[in-house]
This record gives sequence, structure tokens and C-alpha cells, in this order.
Amino acid sequence: MQTPWEYRYAHRIQKMGSSIIRELLKLTEQPDIISFAGGLPAPEVFPVKKFQEACNQVLMEHGAQALQYSVTEGYKPLREMIARHTARFSVQVTAENIMITSGSQQALDFIGRLFINRGDYIVVESPTYLGALQAWNAYGAQYISVPTDEDGMLVDRLEEALRIGPKFIYVLPNFQNPSGSTLSLERRKRLIVLADQYGVPIVEDDPYGQLRYDGENIPSVAALDGRYRNDAADNNEYSGNVIYLSTFSKLLAPGLRLAWVIAPPQVIRKLVMAKQAADLHTSSFSQHVAYEVAKGGFLDEHVKIIRATYKERRDVMLEIMDEVFPPEMRWTRPQGGMFLWGILPEHIDAAEVLKTAVQRKVAFVPGMAFHANGGGANTMRINFSFSNPEHIREGIARLGITLKEALKNGKK
Amino acid sequence: MQTPWEYRYAHRIQKMGSSIIRELLKLTEQPDIISFAGGLPAPEVFPVKKFQEACNQVLMEHGAQALQYSVTEGYKPLREMIARHTARFSVQVTAENIMITSGSQQALDFIGRLFINRGDYIVVESPTYLGALQAWNAYGAQYISVPTDEDGMLVDRLEEALRIGPKFIYVLPNFQNPSGSTLSLERRKRLIVLADQYGVPIVEDDPYGQLRYDGENIPSVAALDGRYRNDAADNNEYSGNVIYLSTFSKLLAPGLRLAWVIAPPQVIRKLVMAKQAADLHTSSFSQHVAYEVAKGGFLDEHVKIIRATYKERRDVMLEIMDEVFPPEMRWTRPQGGMFLWGILPEHIDAAEVLKTAVQRKVAFVPGMAFHANGGGANTMRINFSFSNPEHIREGIARLGITLKEALKNGKK
Repeated sequence: MQTPWEYRYAHRIQKMGSSIIRELLKLTEQPDIISFAGGLPAPEVFPVKKFQEACNQVLMEHGAQALQYSVTEGYKPLREMIARHTARFSVQVTAENIMITSGSQQALDFIGRLFINRGDYIVVESPTYLGALQAWNAYGAQYISVPTDEDGMLVDRLEEALRIGPKFIYVLPNFQNPSGSTLSLERRKRLIVLADQYGVPIVEDDPYGQLRYDGENIPSVAALDGRYRNDAADNNEYSGNVIYLSTFSKLLAPGLRLAWVIAPPQVIRKLVMAKQAADLHTSSFSQHVAYEVAKGGFLDEHVKIIRATYKERRDVMLEIMDEVFPPEMRWTRPQGGMFLWGILPEHIDAAEVLKTAVQRKVAFVPGMAFHANGGGANTMRINFSFSNPEHIREGIARLGITLKEALKNGKK
Repeated sequence: MQTPWEYRYAHRIQKMGSSIIRELLKLTEQPDIISFAGGLPAPEVFPVKKFQEACNQVLMEHGAQALQYSVTEGYKPLREMIARHTARFSVQVTAENIMITSGSQQALDFIGRLFINRGDYIVVESPTYLGALQAWNAYGAQYISVPTDEDGMLVDRLEEALRIGPKFIYVLPNFQNPSGSTLSLERRKRLIVLADQYGVPIVEDDPYGQLRYDGENIPSVAALDGRYRNDAADNNEYSGNVIYLSTFSKLLAPGLRLAWVIAPPQVIRKLVMAKQAADLHTSSFSQHVAYEVAKGGFLDEHVKIIRATYKERRDVMLEIMDEVFPPEMRWTRPQGGMFLWGILPEHIDAAEVLKTAVQRKVAFVPGMAFHANGGGANTMRINFSFSNPEHIREGIARLGITLKEALKNGKK
């Protein structure tokens, strides 16, 4: 039976069709599967006891405020704390540069809402983050895909993309989801110069920046842009060319749905208007609790535990891959983050491999989903943060058998 | 200095301009003002101790799950609890009829996203809820305003509105924000028949339904629609003509940002897709905590405290108004909710009155903001839930002086 509502879906819903992430979360819910498919943090590193203390403290001291309606831009002490944290990583910002969002996904949605008109072009990496494509498909975006290697976006190929007249450039410079690649310092600098030259702004999505296990930290694109413009000194407020996104999801817990946007104050004011119409504000309780957990420098200590845990898991995964993966297969060795990227020979379809893999009770994400303009059928995203080392050993062994078999069959 | 971002705002942002609610929240933040302007619950009724117990319980028993990513439609035990609660109020629904949202504002936004194309007409009451207008302005909605009286929308005037071909009808049948009016049973039935006849669906927004202080409960429009259609018996799932919204904001605490949508399952599936692109899911921690607080029947007891508190405040307010308000002024005597509605003589501008009122340290909302197509300059919304009886006495006395003065000056 059709309801009157069904005749009324606006045209735009057609473009929202894909619900791949959701289906993936369902896969990971099968209790007996070893899933490298999700993008989940390890629950073992959630600071549960610290949360308990923080909840009690917040409710005892600020119950009335933490449970009440609040301002759209976010809890001011939290925004000020984020400003101080950001300044340490050398982008000069104030609380006026910051809005709290319900996860980075919401920031991506608002960016679409404000900036994308149907048919607009967005420059993305190939592969790129699926959630961004889902957010922007709803606004009728089209994409210009720039290829990547282990040092991130091939900026030499960026100029031809910029000549098409895109609305903005979307990059994940650190330990990218899905590929694990990191944009080199030289390429970051070149990106900023090119973006400035063509007057095209940049959206920098940085959920994993703090999760580096080897090598040297590279300044964020926003930080480099601030130095390049050298206007931060005027008023302590960043007013450059970059909208920067980060999140508490990987440092603390994704279940809080807490992230933040850093942007020029004029852009923040527009984002605040969008957020007011969309959900009034992010949970005041979550914001108070996150502030209470983080305020005494806890995150600096806690992130060391996360790094140690994920480094071990990445190392175990790479070690077993070296042993059991077929020699025709290539994969990245990311210096941080939560994902690595497998590349099969061109003629092998990773989605087909997944079907066999699931029968062997192991899962990953076929890489095609991360390509805005098709391609990548022979690629796969493998998560190393969620499963413990024992499961990683077992799961990668199963995957190795599956891959060898696929290659053998593929040759026939 | 203009940033490259500023050249890129999409056309639609123009329509998001008004941030009246936000400015109002700022007014209420002045510490020495007695504000009847906000729509805030009384913080005295927040069950802070119960929250503390629930947070501890959730973190002890379900920490890993409550802090992790979760499914878009919402925590299943919470959705099942809402389904049981709804069935008690005689709409037959299952968890498949329910999606959790980050406040009802988010549900309004998603309804706009799915159903409104630029230029579409929506039937609204005059006055109506400002937040709905803000959500739908962003999608380019136009409005057909149907006048109201103390029994809600004048359904005799609905038919001419339906002939224009609106996308849906938006009603707040119980203790409406802003007017405090309640749609009578007869009008609810007539609304359903007319909507069915013209094939136009209904959005029923019901944040205050449980906050009745006098008189008999009236079944929700969704419940009456279910009976009218008599198809609920088939499969226990509601699949009628109404999208029904309600929230924990007034029963528990708005700072959690927890609300729900009830709709036919086909509509829920589309809403889930919209939510996935917009923010993945509502805070799993908030959902677990709300479930833990509410699961043992706590809300049934707690709502009695809220009712007693707000009834007293309403009664005090009406008593003082009878004493000190000028005889030319009329106002509603709502049977529940959080607001009453003042009507000044036609030639008096409530926005001008507010300016003097703020100097006397008392605030309300000029009613014009709640009229989608203009008018209502002589009306005002007055909140009685937030201020304690002592502040109500003092604030209404101040307002009485202000109003008498305005009327005296208005006569010159």
C-alpha cells in the first residue's frame, strides 16, 4: 500500500540512495565475523571510568545547565579549550572560529547545505571518504576526482581540476580514510598556493591527525595556510582559505557525537544559522561531559594509550599480511590512523572477493564505494583499529586464503 | 576582508537569515531579567539524581556499546519502549514506525529535506511554531496560514487552503507553541477527513501532549487517523496519513537532544537515509541514558511532578494577570503546555512594548515572529514554565505596568 507521503518525496531523495555505511555496520553486527569493514575505534580504549567520574561531576555541579537548552555554536568552555588545543598545533584561532557539531558528518552536511548548488563540482581525492560523498550527493554535487598515491593527492593533477571551476577542494591529509595515505608537506604547500591562485577554498577533514605511530607530524593545511597568509597576527582569529574539521570520535568516543569545525568567523556565523534550523544545538550534556573529561589534560595522556594499541594492531596486521597475502597483492603501510588499503591485480573484483570472504567469516570494504567517479573495483579498505591482535591474526589468515583462491580462479 | 568562502554561499542561505530564537536565548541569559521569552523547561524538575544513577549504570553495564558508533534509526530498546508507550495512547505502532532524532527540530529539518521543493506550499496554523518555519524556510517553502482560535485551527477554513495543493498540513494540536490553544476532538476528526479527501498528509507536532493540567485528554491526530483507516489491525504497524513528532525535551531534559518520529515504515526508511547523510546517528550515550532513566516506568511518576509544578506556575500567572493587566488586553487560559498568548488592541505593536519591558527587566516574545505570512503585530507569547512563582508575580507585575503605559501612550 502506498501512503500519501510516498507521492511526495522530493526529487532530491533519489540521490540519497546508497546506504553502504549502514549496511556495513550491519555486517559488523554478526557476532561470529571478524570484521575489518567498519571504521570503529577499539572499545577497549574507551575511558569508561573517566566518563563515570565526569558524568557525576557534571551532574553534581552543572546539572541544570548540562540538561537545559543551550546556544547553537556550542558550550563556550569547550570551544575555548579546542581553540587552545588548536593553537598548540599552530593555527591561531579563538572560540569565534569554532562551532561544535554532532559528529563531523554533520559538519560535512552543513558545508553541503551552505555551499553546494545542484550540479556544482567538488574536487575530491580518489579514493575519498564515503560519508562526504553521501552528505553532498543529497545536495546534487558532482565530483572531480584527483588521483592519489602513498603521499596523498597528486597535486600536479590538481590544476586541471581547478580550471573546471569547483566550489571547493576536499582533502583528508592525515592517514586518509580509506587509503591510509598522508599528504606530504611539499604537496600541502603546493595545494595552498594553487587553491589561492584559483580562489578555490579547501575543506580539510582531519579525524586522525593525533593518531600517528611513526614519522614526524606534518602541520595541518589550515596551519600552513595561516602562515602563508600571515594575517593571524592581526586579531588572533583565523580568516584564511580553509575550513578544518576534527572530532572527539577517535580521541574519546564516537557515541557522544561530538566534533568541531574551524573556519573564518564569517563562515562560522553562517554555519550557526544552518545548525539552528537543523537541530538547534548539539547535546549540552555530551559537551559538558567531554569538557569535564578533557579539561585537565587527560586527552594528552589518553591518546598515548590509543596510539600504542593501534600501533600494535597495525604492526600485527602488516606482519601477517607479509606472511600470508599473495605476492600479486599490494597494500599501504600507513603511519597512523585506522585503515590500510589493499590493491589487487586489475582484473580481480574486490566485491566478488568479499562474498567468499564473508563465507569464511571475515569482512572488509570493497574500495569501489570510495571512488566518486567509478573505478577502484580491485581495491579494498581494511580496518586495523577495531579487532584485537588475536582476531587480526586469524582474520588476515582467512583473508589470505580467500585472496589466494580468488587470484587462482581469476587466472583461469 | 572577504574570504573565498564568502563568494560561495549558495542562494539558499539567504532564506536562513532570521535567527530570532537564538537572539531570544541570548535575552534570557541576562542574569537580572525575568524572562517569559524562552521556551525552557524548569531546571528544578530535571531528575538530576536519576540521571546520575542512569549514567553510572549505563557505563558499568553497557559502556562499550553506549560510547560506540550505532545504527542510524536509534537504539532498539528505546524505540521499542516508545512503541509500547505510544500504543498505550492508542496508536498501534512497532519499532519499525520509529526513528530517534536529535530533538524534534531535526525531524522538522528532515521533513523539509525529503518533502519540500522550492516554492512548495505548506499549510500552517496562524500563529505557528517558529522553529518549523526556520527549518522549512531553508528549503524554500511557502506557507498557507489558516487562522486559529482557542480550539485550534479553524478547520472550516482548511478546505480553501487544501485547494491550493499544499505538500502537507502542519499542526500542533496540544497546548500549541505559541498560543497555548488545543485542537478540539471534532476539529481533529474533520481535519483527518479533509486531509484524506484531498490526499494531503499531516505532520503532527506534539511536544506537550503529556503536560495537561485540566480537562480530558484528547486522542492524537495520529491515533484518530489510525482508527479512521482501521488498517492498524493488519500488521500492528501504523501506515496512515500522519507523521507524528514527540520528544524527551519536556519530559526529561532538552539538553539530551532526544526526540522521535512516528511514521509509516516506508517514510521511516527515507528518514533514516536522510539522517545517515546528516549526522550518522543520535548520541548512543544519550539514548542509553534516556532508556535507563525511563525503562522502569519512571516517566509516569516524574511527569506528575512536572504537571504539578507547571500548573502552579500557570495558575499564579493567570491570577496576577487578572489583577494587573489592563482591561483592553485579552489572553488565553491554556489547559496545559508551557505558553499562553496575549492579544493587545490592534493598534499596539508588541515589539515596541518589548523594548520598554526589557528596560523594566522583563521579557516575552512579540507574536509577529510566529505568523508565516505577516500580521499578529499586536500579539505576544508568554512562557510560564521556566520562572518560579515568585519571579512570575514580580515579572507579570512589571509587565502589567508596561502594558498599561503602552496603552495609555497608544491612545494619544
